[in-house]
Amino acid sequence: MTHGNAPATSPPRSTLAVTAHAGDFVWRAGGAIALAASRGEKVTIACLTFGERGESAKAWREGKKLEEIKAIRREEAERAAAALGAEVRFFDAGDYPLLVTPELTDRLVAVYRDVQPDIVLTHPADDPYNGDHPAAHRMALEARILAQAIGYPGEGDIIGAPPVFCFEPHQPEMSGFRPEVLLDITDVWETKREAMECLAAQRHLWDYYTDLAVRRGVQLKRNAGPNLGLPHQTLAEAYMRPYPQIAKELA
Amino acid sequence: MTHGNAPATSPPRSTLAVTAHAGDFVWRAGGAIALAASRGEKVTIACLTFGERGESAKAWREGKKLEEIKAIRREEAERAAAALGAEVRFFDAGDYPLLVTPELTDRLVAVYRDVQPDIVLTHPADDPYNGDHPAAHRMALEARILAQAIGYPGEGDIIGAPPVFCFEPHQPEMSGFRPEVLLDITDVWETKREAMECLAAQRHLWDYYTDLAVRRGVQLKRNAGPNLGLPHQTLAEAYMRPYPQIAKELA
Amino acid sequence: MTHGNAPATSPPRSTLAVTAHAGDFVWRAGGAIALAASRGEKVTIACLTFGERGESAKAWREGKKLEEIKAIRREEAERAAAALGAEVRFFDAGDYPLLVTPELTDRLVAVYRDVQPDIVLTHPADDPYNGDHPAAHRMALEARILAQAIGYPGEGDIIGAPPVFCFEPHQPEMSGFRPEVLLDITDVWETKREAMECLAAQRHLWDYYTDLAVRRGVQLKRNAGPNLGLPHQTLAEAYMRPYPQIAKELA
Amino acid sequence: MTHGNAPATSPPRSTLAVTAHAGDFVWRAGGAIALAASRGEKVTIACLTFGERGESAKAWREGKKLEEIKAIRREEAERAAAALGAEVRFFDAGDYPLLVTPELTDRLVAVYRDVQPDIVLTHPADDPYNGDHPAAHRMALEARILAQAIGYPGEGDIIGAPPVFCFEPHQPEMSGFRPEVLLDITDVWETKREAMECLAAQRHLWDYYTDLAVRRGVQLKRNAGPNLGLPHQTLAEAYMRPYPQIAKELA
Amino acid sequence: MTHGNAPATSPPRSTLAVTAHAGDFVWRAGGAIALAASRGEKVTIACLTFGERGESAKAWREGKKLEEIKAIRREEAERAAAALGAEVRFFDAGDYPLLVTPELTDRLVAVYRDVQPDIVLTHPADDPYNGDHPAAHRMALEARILAQAIGYPGEGDIIGAPPVFCFEPHQPEMSGFRPEVLLDITDVWETKREAMECLAAQRHLWDYYTDLAVRRGVQLKRNAGPNLGLPHQTLAEAYMRPYPQIAKELA
Amino acid sequence: MTHGNAPATSPPRSTLAVTAHAGDFVWRAGGAIALAASRGEKVTIACLTFGERGESAKAWREGKKLEEIKAIRREEAERAAAALGAEVRFFDAGDYPLLVTPELTDRLVAVYRDVQPDIVLTHPADDPYNGDHPAAHRMALEARILAQAIGYPGEGDIIGAPPVFCFEPHQPEMSGFRPEVLLDITDVWETKREAMECLAAQRHLWDYYTDLAVRRGVQLKRNAGPNLGLPHQTLAEAYMRPYPQIAKELA
Repeated sequence: MTHGNAPATSPPRSTLAVTAHAGDFVWRAGGAIALAASRGEKVTIACLTFGERGESAKAWREGKKLEEIKAIRREEAERAAAALGAEVRFFDAGDYPLLVTPELTDRLVAVYRDVQPDIVLTHPADDPYNGDHPAAHRMALEARILAQAIGYPGEGDIIGAPPVFCFEPHQPEMSGFRPEVLLDITDVWETKREAMECLAAQRHLWDYYTDLAVRRGVQLKRNAGPNLGLPHQTLAEAYMRPYPQIAKELA
Repeated sequence: MTHGNAPATSPPRSTLAVTAHAGDFVWRAGGAIALAASRGEKVTIACLTFGERGESAKAWREGKKLEEIKAIRREEAERAAAALGAEVRFFDAGDYPLLVTPELTDRLVAVYRDVQPDIVLTHPADDPYNGDHPAAHRMALEARILAQAIGYPGEGDIIGAPPVFCFEPHQPEMSGFRPEVLLDITDVWETKREAMECLAAQRHLWDYYTDLAVRRGVQLKRNAGPNLGLPHQTLAEAYMRPYPQIAKELA
Repeated sequence: MTHGNAPATSPPRSTLAVTAHAGDFVWRAGGAIALAASRGEKVTIACLTFGERGESAKAWREGKKLEEIKAIRREEAERAAAALGAEVRFFDAGDYPLLVTPELTDRLVAVYRDVQPDIVLTHPADDPYNGDHPAAHRMALEARILAQAIGYPGEGDIIGAPPVFCFEPHQPEMSGFRPEVLLDITDVWETKREAMECLAAQRHLWDYYTDLAVRRGVQLKRNAGPNLGLPHQTLAEAYMRPYPQIAKELA
Repeated sequence: MTHGNAPATSPPRSTLAVTAHAGDFVWRAGGAIALAASRGEKVTIACLTFGERGESAKAWREGKKLEEIKAIRREEAERAAAALGAEVRFFDAGDYPLLVTPELTDRLVAVYRDVQPDIVLTHPADDPYNGDHPAAHRMALEARILAQAIGYPGEGDIIGAPPVFCFEPHQPEMSGFRPEVLLDITDVWETKREAMECLAAQRHLWDYYTDLAVRRGVQLKRNAGPNLGLPHQTLAEAYMRPYPQIAKELA
Repeated sequence: MTHGNAPATSPPRSTLAVTAHAGDFVWRAGGAIALAASRGEKVTIACLTFGERGESAKAWREGKKLEEIKAIRREEAERAAAALGAEVRFFDAGDYPLLVTPELTDRLVAVYRDVQPDIVLTHPADDPYNGDHPAAHRMALEARILAQAIGYPGEGDIIGAPPVFCFEPHQPEMSGFRPEVLLDITDVWETKREAMECLAAQRHLWDYYTDLAVRRGVQLKRNAGPNLGLPHQTLAEAYMRPYPQIAKELA
Repeated sequence: MTHGNAPATSPPRSTLAVTAHAGDFVWRAGGAIALAASRGEKVTIACLTFGERGESAKAWREGKKLEEIKAIRREEAERAAAALGAEVRFFDAGDYPLLVTPELTDRLVAVYRDVQPDIVLTHPADDPYNGDHPAAHRMALEARILAQAIGYPGEGDIIGAPPVFCFEPHQPEMSGFRPEVLLDITDVWETKREAMECLAAQRHLWDYYTDLAVRRGVQLKRNAGPNLGLPHQTLAEAYMRPYPQIAKELA
């Protein structure tokens, strides 16, 4: 149990995922999102770009145009979000490179104040293979701080200090990623797989991220001991925490 | 909620604290111990030495002898453990220096298999001001691994892979200590203070560790946001996790 | 003794503190500033913002307006600087977020060349709770390098390579802060306390930073040995050095 | 000026260098030793081995025997120490490998209590090219802590907490060595060179360590600015500090 | 091309793998070993223990005795080594825990001098899940240094400074493992799989390490660019280098 | 041998060096460039600024004007490039500070696509003494990623993922520089020295970088063993690799 538990009359818990490209929330955090939705919570995805330049190689090779590609990626992401039970908001900020700007950060502050997140999901700080991911990380973290300040202008109420979870990058060992939280997503695995299959443009990643979930599941069991009655096939996602965990009990 | 929750008929949860000197479990983890005891759980302290040479300067200055000092420290520690609701087992392995040996590690394996811990508390890996603390850390972690192996000889059943929490050293910034878990100990603060006051030989630390609890409490609130209904004066202890957290929910 | 000692006819030594918000120089470096002033040296504070948005929550809650808040913070900071014996220059660059720009950096270069510092004080490189602090750090360090180059345009003489000291952030362990220098501020403690009490808007920090000074003083004594004739109650401030110390003697 | 300054009637300041092999104190700390001696201070070198196996390749190739080699290295080291103005004590603990043992550590404790050092010099923590150096480091640091404890048995008075300076290893970048103190040894350079030339068995290192002194001197000037009146040719040694500097003034 | 290339009349190149347990050389370095053997080179495996206590859980659960288990593991390892084209030497030093001793290190020195390795393979420095692996690493690296010293006693010629490659641990992200070399093992994959299938006691790892080879192969291609004519399915092993690469060409 | 070897009919291998100032490619990578040119390969230097403000102190002191200084530095760099056998392209982006901008990064993308590098050379990530170097590093790495994306607009074919080598900064230990590759430049040393001597404005660095080459050569031999038939005087340059090495053989 954590401090975050709210009395029965409060609004449902709220999760905000800030991601660089249209597919990121599915591959990297689809399980966490589906779990939250399955508990009746609200999940909002702030999708900063469509990944139209940097993560749509297949479409470009087929000769598609920029706007066409953006439309395809948008439609895929919307279907994947629906499958997971989440709402996705597109910022269309332009990828490759995604630029860190005060204006885009300010738009994120507005989202924070609107959705009042209890939990924030975003990219980790480093990724030597894709500069857009660290850019999204920096803006997600800066906007979270600004949104807490009563002196920062804008609509809506200030927020608290919601815990942040950074999801796994594509090449974790090269990105300084150490699994600090292993989340059991076995119960929602079918939902995550369904959402992945909405992303037809990146079909080669379906099995890749299935294998990753199996591997993180094995690791979860190795770190949990043999006695927990976990199912034979446990699936998991890994996260880092940039801020300390608040606990009422060590567990 | 975590995987660790057991069915109603299982034995109470078990915590094992492995510490170098007689006072360590009080100053550094007294709150966690008192919390566990207050939930009806079992807490066992494996106290490797009495701190008779390295942490009893006052007694030596008063001209006391080695055995006398050990008896005083033992008695103080037993009273403090009783105040917290825990059992303390003394290894009398000799401090300053506490040596890492296979024999002492083997004695720890036997304790692990006896108490079957769900949670392990111990010193962090580094402390440039006291070599006994890292020595205790290394043996606590190695014994935990050995106790998991069916092929390692000895009495008792093998154990699972209980999570480990490293408590705060005296000079945290010099010891690479980063608070990864902030544990709210407000509800058991009076008990911890009472246990600290059992340690008459180190009276100068009573207020020092009270101030630390206040400061970690301020930090807890700063990381939790204004909305949690925390009491004005929150007190806390800080821990590091050398192994990943296993979770069914991000919080 | 260090290389920095100057012949009797040279101008007094000069300290430059580059800080993000109006209160920073008091909480974090008030002792060092008061010590320098007490030796008859010149201290200049380059205060990049008033902390009007990010560190004036109480005033915003009371319904004050932006310009009003800036005026209050300015007045408080001027009184605190006077108490310490320093001159403060306000840049009014806007906080939350403080943006790193070539223009603001250039204004800092001009200050460096004007005050010709023998010592530079500023924020450390990291602070996950406040992005303005690292922004000030980056500009302080970059301007120091630019001001050394004869080819960089602007008024005034180029500077040498003054040593830099990074003062302590609010959550040191979370910011990678390791005390590398412990400065004995016992002799000027009353002055620092007086300066803190000029900052009425942040009354809750008065005792917090008093406790920190006590704690750093305890640490100073622990690292200095029992033989130095230090007073029972020693108070201290902690600093990091991003550049090597230049010494004529190891001590 | 530092806390270490003693009243006129106290004994001269004392430096203790703990080194693995017979030549180490010359190459790596000869300047610091000569400086201290030139100020009338006492310098004691605890030389744990003669480097008879690991650093005497030339003698082995010439067919010399173990005892013969030890005698040569001892004689060279004694002459070098005399040149620097220091006393050297040989432990003959056996090199390649130098083993970390409680017995050898205990002998070091006795030296600490005997010489009552104000300053400690030793190897840094890491050296992937020579395991004896980290072994000496670990024992030097552990003995320093044990010697502070009144409860640790043995002759002599307990010591304070003298600052420690780790001198430069042969391959600094591969050993995690970062120059934290650059010591100006220009005034005693001729003495250091003379001491190096006492080490005939390692003639190829004379110029190597001369070049290093030049390079560290250039770095000293680069970190000190153009205004200090340093001589054209400044020579320096580099050190790391595992413990914080205690200061009465930032400089 | 590297410096290691030898003239036509020299003996074949020699690889030495130092491993903690009987299966390690197969899972972690089977590809590198098979590649070397396929080039007609000599490969020697120094297998410090049979993994009889720590990695034979299945056999213990089936009620087998210690000597029986050691015999099984030995026989499996010999068949796997034969499949790869390597010779395995058993040290039977006892696992769980594998102790770092001067005697065992000395036995390794003798192997180094006997096989005169051009390449060394061993475990990386850290593994929080298995203390035997770091113990093997430390002895492998220390023996390599000792074997270079003409003054270290024993049979055989001294060795040069062969490059060291640390193979991948079971939980790479938790062990600080960063892939620094990705070795293409596609051509010998069938051989590695055959060797893995010799290890009947750890059948659950066959597919695990096949998946790992696929994943490292994907990573190899991602770091190599699309233009290299790599096969669709590339398989790879990952290694770290504790010492710098020596090169005649950047590639 | 590496994957990079191309069939006989392909174009010569191509090296791209991205540097901040006019002299950088000579001091830090002149050997690698001369080696590549000596093999008949193409080398292109993208020189972002002339170093007109930050690295031309002598000219400024002599009263020269900005455009004059730029002309001098250009002419020197062109002669040095010619001596090495490389082509240099000047961006004239303005130094001290060199600003990271999308426009300059885009110009670098165009160069990447034009020269289709097999190898990239650039500054390392950190340099606390010169902010232009890290700025060049960041743009070099980001442009390399953008140039790989078919969706990124511009002329020319997309590139693969060429390996990156970061050359040595002026103060390596202060910049986190660890030699990961030691390149033997003995065969082209005369050429590098000749190129250095084209840089009359920085005459004081000629010997400095000669000494560095000697020292890195000594280190190369220490890491290569005595058996390689290296010449008595080996000269070398050091590099870091931000991405893993791709290998067909461990060596």
